[in-house]
Amino acid sequence: MKVNGTPMRTIWLNDDGWSVDIIDQTIFPFCFEIVTLRSVPDCARAITDMLVRGAPLIGATAAYGMALAMRKDASDAGLSSAYEVLHATRPTAINLKWALDRMRAVLLCLPQNQREAAAYTEAARLCDDDVAVNSAIGDHGLELIKAIAKTKTAGEPVNILTHCNAGWLATVDWGTATSPIYKAHDLGLNVHVWVDETRPRNQGDALTAWELNQHGVPHHVIVDNAGGHLMQHGKVDLVIVGTDRTCANGDVCNKIGTYLKALAAHDNNIPFYVTLPSSTIDFSLNDGVQIPIEERDGSEVSHVLGRAEDGTVLKVQLTPDGSPLANPAFDVTPARLVTGLITERGIVAADTAALAALFPERAGQAH
Amino acid sequence: MKVNGTPMRTIWLNDDGWSVDIIDQTIFPFCFEIVTLRSVPDCARAITDMLVRGAPLIGATAAYGMALAMRKDASDAGLSSAYEVLHATRPTAINLKWALDRMRAVLLCLPQNQREAAAYTEAARLCDDDVAVNSAIGDHGLELIKAIAKTKTAGEPVNILTHCNAGWLATVDWGTATSPIYKAHDLGLNVHVWVDETRPRNQGDALTAWELNQHGVPHHVIVDNAGGHLMQHGKVDLVIVGTDRTCANGDVCNKIGTYLKALAAHDNNIPFYVTLPSSTIDFSLNDGVQIPIEERDGSEVSHVLGRAEDGTVLKVQLTPDGSPLANPAFDVTPARLVTGLITERGIVAADTAALAALFPERAGQAH
Repeated sequence: MKVNGTPMRTIWLNDDGWSVDIIDQTIFPFCFEIVTLRSVPDCARAITDMLVRGAPLIGATAAYGMALAMRKDASDAGLSSAYEVLHATRPTAINLKWALDRMRAVLLCLPQNQREAAAYTEAARLCDDDVAVNSAIGDHGLELIKAIAKTKTAGEPVNILTHCNAGWLATVDWGTATSPIYKAHDLGLNVHVWVDETRPRNQGDALTAWELNQHGVPHHVIVDNAGGHLMQHGKVDLVIVGTDRTCANGDVCNKIGTYLKALAAHDNNIPFYVTLPSSTIDFSLNDGVQIPIEERDGSEVSHVLGRAEDGTVLKVQLTPDGSPLANPAFDVTPARLVTGLITERGIVAADTAALAALFPERAGQAH
Repeated sequence: MKVNGTPMRTIWLNDDGWSVDIIDQTIFPFCFEIVTLRSVPDCARAITDMLVRGAPLIGATAAYGMALAMRKDASDAGLSSAYEVLHATRPTAINLKWALDRMRAVLLCLPQNQREAAAYTEAARLCDDDVAVNSAIGDHGLELIKAIAKTKTAGEPVNILTHCNAGWLATVDWGTATSPIYKAHDLGLNVHVWVDETRPRNQGDALTAWELNQHGVPHHVIVDNAGGHLMQHGKVDLVIVGTDRTCANGDVCNKIGTYLKALAAHDNNIPFYVTLPSSTIDFSLNDGVQIPIEERDGSEVSHVLGRAEDGTVLKVQLTPDGSPLANPAFDVTPARLVTGLITERGIVAADTAALAALFPERAGQAH
């Protein structure tokens, strides 16, 4: 994706050859700032405080965290300690563990003096793999959009609703849910995106709308409450969302509120697709409600970040003093509401047999 | 309801005996200010700018607007002009037309010199009627809460989810959706309320949470995205919402997002009740999708009112510059998702026959 006309990724090696640059996503869409990570605690903080978010980018950041760890202490103890610190940052994202396991598997069997170089190489490879995976997801999803576009008369857009940000900013490049959209737009298809603002952290406002704006994709921002109404009135052709974790049976754990949109899509016979790199599939889980749901700080509900008329970016309080808050961060969309899963290997039904057939090597491993 | 320990209504005659006092609900929950209305344009502005909102309170404000009109010009032309101005303020609320029609019917058959006094009397009566109606709704809804409370073990609350503000502040007193809750709480039943913040205008944050706080009813504020997850996990026993307009067939038009909660309640076998004074039933409509849905200004989506740390109350921008916005204000919940309608005459199924049987005099009129 391009930012101010320049192609960029969301994470890259700094010119110094060892530290790691990311974009601070907590101050979007008002500021664009690059932050340099120089240690495991830097990486852990970037994940916990959500300077980086989105399963694939969390994984990439953790992978580079392991490289920074090896630079400082390449012993088994150093490796194990970095693994633990990074693993504890976000409980829900399966990608985090997947990336850390991949790094550990490469590093553990090497002598200590080779670990630093190998860790940087593997982290870079993990990032390139993510880009390739997302591009493939885009190619498969593009076919769905092409098919809908064929049913439209001239000038009528394909209306796609998305929730949260499974975009470029959630990955190393392309995004997952946005990848088919960018591919369709770049091909000249007439696509229009309904962007859920995605309370409480407003990733739709801050990230998805910002991305689409930068890339020139037509869109409207709506509140999370509006999608059902738009679907009832034929204004949505397709829902595409991402996922933080997908179960072997096709249950999908994604940003809070996804389940409500899936219900509305189902009620209005609108296809509801979930894009995912297969790394987010947890073949050991057969029921989404088993997934531990992160309960985040209530201040995310009571306060919101915005820009005042004078340009100051600040948090303001929305709720009355003294009102208690609850803030579950994710919900589970049962497989029965999912039309299909768009993976790097193709589109597959959200059920155990179909997923196992598409990823036999991983499905076998879990049992 | 009590505010700072003092029983209050939301609209009342000023001590001067002719002007009308209301509470400015646009600056809640941070400020509490009383505004005096002295003319039809004052009343129209109070309704359009949502200083007052909620179908019953809009009706009461319009009724007093007619009284203020009669004070200035009690001619048929004055009556007709005030009716038009007030009627044009909000297209969706059926109560508005109902209250204006009631006032006009009383006034038109009187000589001009009796109209002012009669208008004030009728507006006061309309307010008293609203209080009585809401109290009756509370009594009927209370029985539902009592029945659920009986299934709970000691210390377990009855968890009720509500959307938007169909509370005291939306009516002259008691509220509609909150009336059963206040009655249950006052009886000593253990009730706990999940308060949807209700974007884009955050009436849940600003109004419902404020009210419940003042009255001491246990509650948590949640984002609109969270309700489905809470229902999936058995944390909601009952949904009670209000309605701006109810069709003869039981379709319900209420704040945007209500439909999504109804879908989630249905998917989890949780009773979904709608409270309404029968004045909000439009017996001439048999299909909710015929209701014209107000598209409000996009700035309600892009901006939000909050309080900065230094106490300043200000609007901040949430969305990126240049991102277009869409802002439908209401949605329609089909009758098939509504467990029952709680009216002043009792609880009734959301269907044509049941509604017509309970309100034969109104159902007959429409055909």
